[in-house]
Amino acid sequence: MSRDFRTAIATVCLSGALEDKLAAAASAGFDGVEIFEPDLVASPLPPGEVRLRCADLGLSVDLYQPFRDLDSTVPDRFAANLRRAERKFDVMEELGADTVLVCSSVADDAVEDLDVLAEQLRELAERAGARGLRIAYEALAWGRHVNTYDRSWEAVRRADHPALGLCLDSFHILSRGSDPAGIAGIPGEKLFFLQLADAPHLSMDVLQWSRHHRLFPGQGAFDLPGFLAPVLAAGYSGPLSLEVFNDVFRQADPARAAVDAHRSLLALAEATLPAAAGPPAPAVRGHAFVELSADDSLSPVLAALGFARTGQHRTKPVERWEQGSARILVNRSGSPAAVGALAVESADPSGAAHRATWLDATRLPRERGPAEADLAAVTAPDGTALFFCRTGSEEDWTGDFVPTGETAPGIGVTAIDHVGLAQPFDHFDEAVLFYRSVLGLEPAADGEFAAPFGLVRSRAVADADRRVRLALTVSLLRRGEWAPGVSEPQYVALAVDDVVAAARAARAAGAPLLAIPDNYYADLAARLDLPAERIAEYRELGVLHEENPDGAYLQVCTEVLGGRVFLALVQRLGEYDGYGWTDAPVRMAAHRRRRLAREHAHA
Amino acid sequence: MSRDFRTAIATVCLSGALEDKLAAAASAGFDGVEIFEPDLVASPLPPGEVRLRCADLGLSVDLYQPFRDLDSTVPDRFAANLRRAERKFDVMEELGADTVLVCSSVADDAVEDLDVLAEQLRELAERAGARGLRIAYEALAWGRHVNTYDRSWEAVRRADHPALGLCLDSFHILSRGSDPAGIAGIPGEKLFFLQLADAPHLSMDVLQWSRHHRLFPGQGAFDLPGFLAPVLAAGYSGPLSLEVFNDVFRQADPARAAVDAHRSLLALAEATLPAAAGPPAPAVRGHAFVELSADDSLSPVLAALGFARTGQHRTKPVERWEQGSARILVNRSGSPAAVGALAVESADPSGAAHRATWLDATRLPRERGPAEADLAAVTAPDGTALFFCRTGSEEDWTGDFVPTGETAPGIGVTAIDHVGLAQPFDHFDEAVLFYRSVLGLEPAADGEFAAPFGLVRSRAVADADRRVRLALTVSLLRRGEWAPGVSEPQYVALAVDDVVAAARAARAAGAPLLAIPDNYYADLAARLDLPAERIAEYRELGVLHEENPDGAYLQVCTEVLGGRVFLALVQRLGEYDGYGWTDAPVRMAAHRRRRLAREHAHA
Repeated sequence: MSRDFRTAIATVCLSGALEDKLAAAASAGFDGVEIFEPDLVASPLPPGEVRLRCADLGLSVDLYQPFRDLDSTVPDRFAANLRRAERKFDVMEELGADTVLVCSSVADDAVEDLDVLAEQLRELAERAGARGLRIAYEALAWGRHVNTYDRSWEAVRRADHPALGLCLDSFHILSRGSDPAGIAGIPGEKLFFLQLADAPHLSMDVLQWSRHHRLFPGQGAFDLPGFLAPVLAAGYSGPLSLEVFNDVFRQADPARAAVDAHRSLLALAEATLPAAAGPPAPAVRGHAFVELSADDSLSPVLAALGFARTGQHRTKPVERWEQGSARILVNRSGSPAAVGALAVESADPSGAAHRATWLDATRLPRERGPAEADLAAVTAPDGTALFFCRTGSEEDWTGDFVPTGETAPGIGVTAIDHVGLAQPFDHFDEAVLFYRSVLGLEPAADGEFAAPFGLVRSRAVADADRRVRLALTVSLLRRGEWAPGVSEPQYVALAVDDVVAAARAARAAGAPLLAIPDNYYADLAARLDLPAERIAEYRELGVLHEENPDGAYLQVCTEVLGGRVFLALVQRLGEYDGYGWTDAPVRMAAHRRRRLAREHAHA
Repeated sequence: MSRDFRTAIATVCLSGALEDKLAAAASAGFDGVEIFEPDLVASPLPPGEVRLRCADLGLSVDLYQPFRDLDSTVPDRFAANLRRAERKFDVMEELGADTVLVCSSVADDAVEDLDVLAEQLRELAERAGARGLRIAYEALAWGRHVNTYDRSWEAVRRADHPALGLCLDSFHILSRGSDPAGIAGIPGEKLFFLQLADAPHLSMDVLQWSRHHRLFPGQGAFDLPGFLAPVLAAGYSGPLSLEVFNDVFRQADPARAAVDAHRSLLALAEATLPAAAGPPAPAVRGHAFVELSADDSLSPVLAALGFARTGQHRTKPVERWEQGSARILVNRSGSPAAVGALAVESADPSGAAHRATWLDATRLPRERGPAEADLAAVTAPDGTALFFCRTGSEEDWTGDFVPTGETAPGIGVTAIDHVGLAQPFDHFDEAVLFYRSVLGLEPAADGEFAAPFGLVRSRAVADADRRVRLALTVSLLRRGEWAPGVSEPQYVALAVDDVVAAARAARAAGAPLLAIPDNYYADLAARLDLPAERIAEYRELGVLHEENPDGAYLQVCTEVLGGRVFLALVQRLGEYDGYGWTDAPVRMAAHRRRRLAREHAHA
């Protein structure tokens, strides 16, 4: 189209996988795209192929973004950041992108002195310019020392390098109330890139917080026992009353919400008032088993993962599979794979069930159980059955199974590390409170991540010894009309001591391990100082590696197994206490890709 | 249950109508409820019957809330507030509630001097005490002068009246970071009520704003032409690129989102760059017609509302109904009532369609139109057809209709005031931009309200002369599994000069006007200084009355007419520029009630 301006869109604006985004942008008439790095990292397309794809679609690659936290007051870190940049320049050359967005640093070691900052930017620009690339430096509104466009311009002006210019983003400038008039005085050739976004006027003041985001006690972050204690100490004798304004509860089934609310008061009163104590929560000692409903495809995968089929249920089509202390029951109901039941080892199963009932949980009729033994069980908010077991005791559930005598050498699985349970959108907070109050678990991690098909909030609950861990996730806005079946699956994470060895053995035995794109490993190599051989092993086996100062978390996932479940082998290094959420978007994109490939193959 | 504490829940915590909430609370085992005033106001149950209902359910009515903005530095206003309180005491006596929550004032005239405040609280308490009632005074975290519990306690302490005590709310105290330990020093008998809520730690800082709430240009509040102008003045020649992080777009169909995004850049460039101007937006001059698909039940209602059936389409089962300049086409397709098409009077229909197409709108195939004339038409984001007409011109659509010669005296409808279009949850921002850019309308009002079944966001767009107004609403989180069919209906608001006379005539003719509960009028009488006869008329006819310093908005609604449409008669007083959103929750609850009654009658 002959116009006086060109249009572009950042891939982050659009839902889906990178190829969905490129196709949508081209079809809508955009001239170019900004490639948002996480979209490339999650994509199986090599950068050179993205370049060709864009060319075929008539799209230019106008920007690669973002490069974060370049400058540093610590010389070693700055040197590492330059090395990281060189890796990204490699990617840009393959992509055919000549400009990279460099954000002002938000890190503790960000450079405050404008001359030092200019010098570091000049050094980066010199390297970029030598390869025919350009640096567009942008002041983030929340940058540590550079958060206004005039300050970013002053740094660029002092650096005075032809390969260095500014990126201006309307959000960062207008959200701070800066006057854009001064931009007119900047030389046009120094304005390398322009990003546009509108926004509503928003202030999440305490009023908005109060009117939309309150929760029932035990679902949030307030110390409510610490609040209630002085009120009772003062002699208050009226009711404990809930006043909770919450957008989700406002539209939820009131009968369910009221049960959730009532449970919150029982738990709060118990935590504060000795007279209000309910039946105690017996200690949980680990995952007893996970029951998966399944068709015939699941058992071979368990075998390939080193599990032995150690038992066959006396009366039901249920198999018991074991490895280390990990036990998985396979209910060969023929239905698509899903987590049907969780079972925890309890110091006192009937006491635990008694407590759950006191907390308004629904007792599960016995016939629903996977076992003949009179296992105490209740229904969790998402419908999963929750069993309380004491394996090895008199009422042992294992007696319901006829031993097969089968054994397997195993691949090193030692236990169930955790179970991942995607929640219905309006039962997420309820689930957190349920597991806290019924099992005595405590919130162990909180997060949110931008998954390929929408934002996902996540929260893990665990016991203090980390013997029972549950990772809960929710897609608050996900409706999936345009891409059905991409909602977050459930999973069982299996603990191993050496994920590379375990994955190699599993693959040799035919386990359908999920392939992770090369772009992920290129990015991993740029980000972390890992030996090249190790990255090569990771790439070969599809190992995802995330780390923080506490340690690292390595995982290998299977494909989604004929339903909404996958299995993962996970290795924790050091004191890592997370749940793989950093890499979850990459894993979710890979799962979606496999699904499409399978559907394509069957079509 | 024998416990050392009683439990209660505010009705505002739960979704649904008041009776749904009470049933849910009782079923979950709560001992009592706080009655949230808007729930009572929207309910048809007289307060005495709510009392009986609660007693039947085993619930005590522990609190009536909230009473806002009592104290005032303006003596007349304080006197008016005391009169308002007396009306609420009447309601409390019928309800059987002995305690009312009085919030610290947020108004400009709030009293700062603690002795004066104590005196005003004492006066209120004296009146309450005389009727055996109690005042629980609460410091809102955003109260104007009283926003901490120690300040509210100081006021109560100085007032020193047995009928005056404190209400403590954990949210208001903990959200501000106050130390609750000091509460232990307050005499217990002065702690009249305790409200509990948890909350996540939230700070809607610029980072969160940026990552979740950005919009495409023209959808938000930023002055982006004013931002782009200096950038272009500086000589920037790169692409106009969008970088928008938005939780809704993240999960929307990328093909649609990209069209929306592209449109935003065309409109922004046009507003800034002379060379980028598209075809001009011809002036809109009013609503030409609204086409409603309908079964046989709609036409009698139009007749009862004073419309004449002035034409019958030459070839299609479409009738033309007219009154004043309001025209409604009834497409007797037999399908449930819905808005099928909007038509605006345009100074240049084909130019308007040309512009719409330039803005990536989809042209509507001619056969979909209600007329034979080659009307220019496009599809709006929610699927509604949008026609551009010039009634009275050569290509006049009215020629497609055979005149019936029928006339009607009318009930005073002069024109279409506006059309209310509930939007699919992920096309709300897109719709705003569509009507802005395609029709040249501008955002005219913004709001959100807590509807009985979830939060509703609203935004109106209109031309400068207010000849074309569209009220857009969206239920972002509404999924409706527990209460299907209660999503917000569409409506056509018909302008009248005397809503009482028009409603009386309509009712005499058999129009199914929506009954509004007495509680609404009791509240109206308490809030506003309206003559008793006027309120009696309102009550008789179901008139909703909202006002602000600009004027007032009076409306009478029909029941929902066999689908998802209702009609409203609206009268604007003064310069009132709103859309009835203040009273929308009451109207929505009434619509829901009628629906249930009909379903019950048919069952």
